[in-house]
Amino acid sequence: MLIVQKYGGTSVGSLERIENVANRIAKTKSQGNSLVVVVSAMSGETNKLIEYAHHFSKTPSKREMDILLSSGERVTASLLAIALQEMGYKAKAMTGRQAGIRTDNSHTYARIESIDTAFINSCLEEDNIVIVAGFQGINNNGDVTTLGRGGSDLSAVALAGALRADACEIYSDVDGVYTTDPRIEPKAKKLNTISYDEMLELSSLGAKVLQNRSVELAKKMGVKIIAKSSFSDGAGTIITQESEQMEAVLVSGIALDKNQARVSLRDVVDRPGIAAEIFNKLADEQINVDMIIQNASKEETTNLGFTVPYSELEGAKKVIDTFNHDIGGADYDENVCKVSIVGVGMKSHSGIAAKAFSAMADNNINIEMISTSEIKISMIIDEKYGELAVRVLHETYKLDQ
Amino acid sequence: MLIVQKYGGTSVGSLERIENVANRIAKTKSQGNSLVVVVSAMSGETNKLIEYAHHFSKTPSKREMDILLSSGERVTASLLAIALQEMGYKAKAMTGRQAGIRTDNSHTYARIESIDTAFINSCLEEDNIVIVAGFQGINNNGDVTTLGRGGSDLSAVALAGALRADACEIYSDVDGVYTTDPRIEPKAKKLNTISYDEMLELSSLGAKVLQNRSVELAKKMGVKIIAKSSFSDGAGTIITQESEQMEAVLVSGIALDKNQARVSLRDVVDRPGIAAEIFNKLADEQINVDMIIQNASKEETTNLGFTVPYSELEGAKKVIDTFNHDIGGADYDENVCKVSIVGVGMKSHSGIAAKAFSAMADNNINIEMISTSEIKISMIIDEKYGELAVRVLHETYKLDQ
Repeated sequence: MLIVQKYGGTSVGSLERIENVANRIAKTKSQGNSLVVVVSAMSGETNKLIEYAHHFSKTPSKREMDILLSSGERVTASLLAIALQEMGYKAKAMTGRQAGIRTDNSHTYARIESIDTAFINSCLEEDNIVIVAGFQGINNNGDVTTLGRGGSDLSAVALAGALRADACEIYSDVDGVYTTDPRIEPKAKKLNTISYDEMLELSSLGAKVLQNRSVELAKKMGVKIIAKSSFSDGAGTIITQESEQMEAVLVSGIALDKNQARVSLRDVVDRPGIAAEIFNKLADEQINVDMIIQNASKEETTNLGFTVPYSELEGAKKVIDTFNHDIGGADYDENVCKVSIVGVGMKSHSGIAAKAFSAMADNNINIEMISTSEIKISMIIDEKYGELAVRVLHETYKLDQ
Repeated sequence: MLIVQKYGGTSVGSLERIENVANRIAKTKSQGNSLVVVVSAMSGETNKLIEYAHHFSKTPSKREMDILLSSGERVTASLLAIALQEMGYKAKAMTGRQAGIRTDNSHTYARIESIDTAFINSCLEEDNIVIVAGFQGINNNGDVTTLGRGGSDLSAVALAGALRADACEIYSDVDGVYTTDPRIEPKAKKLNTISYDEMLELSSLGAKVLQNRSVELAKKMGVKIIAKSSFSDGAGTIITQESEQMEAVLVSGIALDKNQARVSLRDVVDRPGIAAEIFNKLADEQINVDMIIQNASKEETTNLGFTVPYSELEGAKKVIDTFNHDIGGADYDENVCKVSIVGVGMKSHSGIAAKAFSAMADNNINIEMISTSEIKISMIIDEKYGELAVRVLHETYKLDQ
């Protein structure tokens, strides 16, 4: 089998941990597999470099940031290769450029455009374990680019896709994807499998196991991801296409996102395009709008509600102020959170939502906004009830069983 | 003017010092010059990375060491570019690869084979200050290579040569080349100019201002080097071709090398090729022989003396032992040092050597070995007299005047 493994910053956070990772790799290799390993920078290194840059500038040039930040992964990759060589294995470290990763020109948030696997393949043919510095590539000018936070996941998935690997194992300090955050609900259960779509909903909603772009790419390229812990020997969680086996499950998990603020606009003039105008202007200011709800209008006006990340609320207020001729009044609430129920089984079952609303009512939790999609139901509620709601819903759908 | 500047590890050893370097560069730039700046890793960084590697292996693979070690210079280069941009200057950081530096395949000690200056030139044309990560390049396979300790000097000189720069300024924590080590002789004087050849003799003999390979390359390419301090505003020392002005000076400096051990072989069988056999065998074992002296033979045998670096004495002993049939006896002395008088003026003046020998005799310093070249006289003496000899000779040739 050809396996791509990715080890995150915590997994390679010290020389001892790099040694531990080398042992894991050796084990997989000695089982007769071909291996391409993608590594992050040692934990703390990237933040240290960012601090260095901010010593000189609040808005350092992104081109130069990429040369700066790409250095950390090179250190880990070369050290890991050296460790494996010392254990008697053939290993070759390589940079993103040498791994053939070509990106567009968006420094610090580049997209992978193509991967030329020739060098990796020739190294694999010579029985090398290939160690790739994650998070980085080069653009058509030959400039170093990086893929954004968590970009090593993206490197791993893209390489797995390009190499047609049998699996892409993403190692971190958690042993898989859980039905909800175990710090909130100790009865949370590790999932054995989850679909790409569910994973996307769960990760964008706060269950940070895998970078979202990586899951999207895995879905697009059909790469089977296995999320595992590098500190234990559990089987992890397989993230893949929906399967027949999965269909039995109605709800996979509950996510909580506290980084939310609610904006409610009353008596918005009901003329065509007004909503588009408002949201375009918000987009121009780089404000990410999440949930949007428009109530049916009565007479000449309508009510419009949406949520934005907490940190972008001030910016949103400024934008709304420019529409004061078209809006009766605006109401802001910073103390809200979003609780979401995620599951592919939902779409073909009625009554899932009703069950959630009843459970909330039973616990006197007022629902301020509701938004549903095929595989999730999100509710905006008072922030202080966030954890309670997670536990109540976890119990409601019997996720601990 | 097009100026190449190189700042060593101490000069960029902290964020504050990088800021200081940025100010110096800004000053040179605002005088209307074009600038290419080569930087080393922040002091201590390279040693830290070497320690990391040695945690895993006593003999880490050189290919992987190059990926590892090349990361430090990238950090400095990008931070310096960010600092300059913040000050309102156009600046572009680049790796050795982007600077077009192509080397041979000798990892950790690569030789520069060619420099493609196209990217640097296009950046200069757009009025950028170009900041190059020193010490590194890539070979024909696209693998990262490094140029050996002090390799950033080499990067700077090679770039100055390839770009036909008007000057190559090498900044460190000393303000130029001195007549001798000021820690030994406080009256030591900074030289205004020195020839390449003298510099080569002085640096190989212990006055560590500039890496030897860089001086050799500068001589070959006709690059004028100016050695300066990044912590003061002195004029530094110009290292260039011999000039008429220089001819007046007989002696430029006195060097002391304490890393020496003497080997004396008695009654060596006087047959053709025996010396070659011994020295070839020493070379095979990577032992660097420095001074070699053979006395005229009497009868059937001869006496042979040479020096090796102190750390290589044990290896030399083993080699000598294999010749016990051809040698009457061997005598080793670890407590010796080499004092050298260097100066281009010497070669056309007699009496310089005699003056040295008299001065040593006047101070009861016994000379164990003597070796002379066109521009230097080296003497092996008891190690404990090393500093005294330096002061005596400094005085003898009136170098403080």
